[in-house]
Amino acid sequence: MSAVPPLLERAAARLLAADFAPGSVWLVGAGPGDPGLLTLHAAHALASADVVLHDALVPPAILALAATPRLEPVGKRAGCKGANQLRINQRLVALARQDLRVVRLKGGDPLIFGRGGEEALALLSAGIPFRIIPGISAGIGGTAAFGIPLTHRGIARSVAFATGHDSHGRLPAGLDLAALSRGAEVLVLYMALRQAAAIAAALIEAGRPPEEPVAILADATTPRQRAVLATLATAGTIAATLPRAAPSLIVVGPVVAFHDLFAPLLAATPMTALPYSVALRA
Amino acid sequence: MSAVPPLLERAAARLLAADFAPGSVWLVGAGPGDPGLLTLHAAHALASADVVLHDALVPPAILALAATPRLEPVGKRAGCKGANQLRINQRLVALARQDLRVVRLKGGDPLIFGRGGEEALALLSAGIPFRIIPGISAGIGGTAAFGIPLTHRGIARSVAFATGHDSHGRLPAGLDLAALSRGAEVLVLYMALRQAAAIAAALIEAGRPPEEPVAILADATTPRQRAVLATLATAGTIAATLPRAAPSLIVVGPVVAFHDLFAPLLAATPMTALPYSVALRA
Repeated sequence: MSAVPPLLERAAARLLAADFAPGSVWLVGAGPGDPGLLTLHAAHALASADVVLHDALVPPAILALAATPRLEPVGKRAGCKGANQLRINQRLVALARQDLRVVRLKGGDPLIFGRGGEEALALLSAGIPFRIIPGISAGIGGTAAFGIPLTHRGIARSVAFATGHDSHGRLPAGLDLAALSRGAEVLVLYMALRQAAAIAAALIEAGRPPEEPVAILADATTPRQRAVLATLATAGTIAATLPRAAPSLIVVGPVVAFHDLFAPLLAATPMTALPYSVALRA
Repeated sequence: MSAVPPLLERAAARLLAADFAPGSVWLVGAGPGDPGLLTLHAAHALASADVVLHDALVPPAILALAATPRLEPVGKRAGCKGANQLRINQRLVALARQDLRVVRLKGGDPLIFGRGGEEALALLSAGIPFRIIPGISAGIGGTAAFGIPLTHRGIARSVAFATGHDSHGRLPAGLDLAALSRGAEVLVLYMALRQAAAIAAALIEAGRPPEEPVAILADATTPRQRAVLATLATAGTIAATLPRAAPSLIVVGPVVAFHDLFAPLLAATPMTALPYSVALRA
């Protein structure tokens, strides 16, 4: 680890930052967990915001990059149950109307299972200017961290991202796993740990071999990241033994086998540049 | 536009950067085009590299963040035809063996239709240490820039990314568009402009309504970005009129209709924080 990246500072100084106007909201993707996977736009937003409404899952190392002390956790993990999204929307509008620069910081990407579209619509309806800052989705950044090339040439020409739960924690009614499985060579299921057994059964039913490799990834790109390797036949049983609190991904497909090839390298250095820790000298 | 983001510089200074060791290669995602969508890791890599092998499609505004003058364009656009990937692999190994810090800078994400997996395997075989730095894939960052929330809740529980061409420019033989279409509510096809008519026909054949909205996005998140809206019935004819040189995405699904909702906002300010231009005072 280098003490400080002066070259990065110099690079940052060469960019012209977009204005973050008072009274506006930026819906910002925080990426999968590693602060180094924030975009330059996201770092700028955090450095400029007057107030940050963040998912409870966003790690402290990322929140530490906010210049403001006004950090408001929102979402289920923060103990706000019930008509949660509506209250978040209202809070965003209220803060913007106080002429503040508001960051809504969301894990991963705001528009990939992030409900950023709903927040954008609420802001549009209220006449609040906003921007959307894409982030590294966990399905992409998290799989890279474990050496899984989702679309390795000759093996996968398609990859599907799907949510493994609806607002009641069940498999979404509109999700046709059988068709998805036949069409997509690789599947990445978000927040699917509780439904792992049902998902694996549906995929075997759809014709995938029971011995097809499955990776269950938790807290990817953070210092606590861990992967559990399984097969479709064993994934349900194994998932039942794992803690359900951590944000988890289930990855299914032949590309999962690459993880083993890269494992010796992963043991020596993290596959991504993690850990990108925050200095305490702030 | 602010002249300089000093707060961003201060934020960058608070990160401990991962060592970029001489004799190693970082496979780095450059994101869809906007330099502000580089990750902090990617900016650090560019600022620290001794040599940068870059896709010909990576914009000059991103290359300008490299501290080294040693920039080597590679890939088809750079006029290297034929056994291209093999030569790139060999070049990466040769440069690392000269004890250089080598960045392989790829558009979007290295492992999403980026052939980063092949380069990683080549480096592993040669015993060259490497890291993979994920990037914002065009399918995610590019659609956000046009106000298309890929997985809007209640509308899309799944999204599939697929490549629209094989190494000969044809639709990949192993791609089952009919099954993919039945399983995924939203489809994002990369580099698919030439195959737009065939793709649209396959999706209608698979049961999608001919009036389903389609967006053809080119050069997304760059100052030249443009969207052409169509339907499955018209996409093939419209695509045939578009320039084929630009990197293009074809997006199919009901979420495309959100683009119209956000269009007035898009006309006032870019949806992402673009343009994030590079100052000439370097």
